[in-house]
Amino acid sequence: MTHVQQMVQTNFNQAAVDESTLVECIEACFDCAQSCTACADACLGEGDIQMLARCIRLCLDCTEVCEATGKILSRQTAFDAEMARAALEACARACGICGDECERHADHHEHCGVCAEACRHCESACNNVLTAV
Amino acid sequence: MTHVQQMVQTNFNQAAVDESTLVECIEACFDCAQSCTACADACLGEGDIQMLARCIRLCLDCTEVCEATGKILSRQTAFDAEMARAALEACARACGICGDECERHADHHEHCGVCAEACRHCESACNNVLTAV
Amino acid sequence: MTHVQQMVQTNFNQAAVDESTLVECIEACFDCAQSCTACADACLGEGDIQMLARCIRLCLDCTEVCEATGKILSRQTAFDAEMARAALEACARACGICGDECERHADHHEHCGVCAEACRHCESACNNVLTAV
Amino acid sequence: MTHVQQMVQTNFNQAAVDESTLVECIEACFDCAQSCTACADACLGEGDIQMLARCIRLCLDCTEVCEATGKILSRQTAFDAEMARAALEACARACGICGDECERHADHHEHCGVCAEACRHCESACNNVLTAV
Repeated sequence: MTHVQQMVQTNFNQAAVDESTLVECIEACFDCAQSCTACADACLGEGDIQMLARCIRLCLDCTEVCEATGKILSRQTAFDAEMARAALEACARACGICGDECERHADHHEHCGVCAEACRHCESACNNVLTAV
Repeated sequence: MTHVQQMVQTNFNQAAVDESTLVECIEACFDCAQSCTACADACLGEGDIQMLARCIRLCLDCTEVCEATGKILSRQTAFDAEMARAALEACARACGICGDECERHADHHEHCGVCAEACRHCESACNNVLTAV
Repeated sequence: MTHVQQMVQTNFNQAAVDESTLVECIEACFDCAQSCTACADACLGEGDIQMLARCIRLCLDCTEVCEATGKILSRQTAFDAEMARAALEACARACGICGDECERHADHHEHCGVCAEACRHCESACNNVLTAV
Repeated sequence: MTHVQQMVQTNFNQAAVDESTLVECIEACFDCAQSCTACADACLGEGDIQMLARCIRLCLDCTEVCEATGKILSRQTAFDAEMARAALEACARACGICGDECERHADHHEHCGVCAEACRHCESACNNVLTAV
């Protein structure tokens, strides 16, 4: 059992959505924030940075949105569905945009491929919570 | 001239929207992130914390969204209107929700009144950029 | 293999310290940021919030420092040992302070026990990288 | 009177250090976080990105540390001097390292000059609070 799962279960207030759907989304948000931070950095170390400027920029943007969403979903006290939806919708869109860009570079840069995968997973995890909330 | 304004002007890439509208929004996002962080803390120091739990929670949520949006808007290279819109829409909604809650406590807690003002200003600044982008 | 590990390996620039030590620390930072966010929230939902005000406050502080450190360590391009040390030292101290406070409440609040564990693990992972860097 | 100042004054718990010293530091942290975010982006839009990779990287690192410190200092409830010192020391060092790098590019890139100024101011504001705390 991960710490995320334990923290969800030991909260006095019950999760607003199915526990495993929530845990998967929280973990995906933090994972995607890390992958995007690392991908922006890996791109910065490549020879063809100019080609990767958009990828770097979107990865930085996506990091911020994933972090915000992962923390908002980690809170179960005085849960506000509208606040959760605002964050989740932004996050699904950010991951979609960033994932598309990373995918375009996946053939030349393995880190972009890994990051695209993290984005896709987070986008889909956000959409799953959006359906349930 | 503030540093925010100088940074916008010295960027090789032109701002995607009218400069003063952009600068005001970036400043409002960082200002609101600070006010919400401080309001959550001030509420935690009050005698009637139980009554303020929702306010604390929403202030923490609003902080994250404002920070993310302030940083995304601070980037002018490879600007992506769809990414900006995703963040701005989430931010306007977060500030609206948090501002409403803070307003409910403004009569008893001055810090909630100041924070509500910061939220309202940020909400409106985000909507102004949304109209222009 | 986790995404963190894949991102470390696919970066053109080699990690400045032993890969598994680095990966463990990055994962511990993001994990502790999440646990602290969730513990602050779980405390806010308890009946004895007044008793938990210090725990909430330190968990929020620790979250920020862990997030910053996790992202700084995720970067391998133009690695700066002094910057890494500044972040790691702050993070080890923050986790130590927060872990002590959480431990004091672990008997009454299970989430504080889980969070203390995450803090201890992150503190030790930061110290391991500090020794190696 | 800025919102930062109003938030400090309306907090039930008194500031741990002289109010104007604290307010200046909080404002400097948020200001420097914004400048560093914008400078990393402006560098990414320049023709000589390769030369600016270290500057981009350190600006991103400095952003995280300034944000964390600005939020930690914004909290007055259950103030912990040791936690504040951990963050402030990391922040003064991060601003020193980043300011040095930005200064090296100030002749060619105006945004680096503005950012160096924001870093210097934040470094000094952190040192002032460190002396007082």
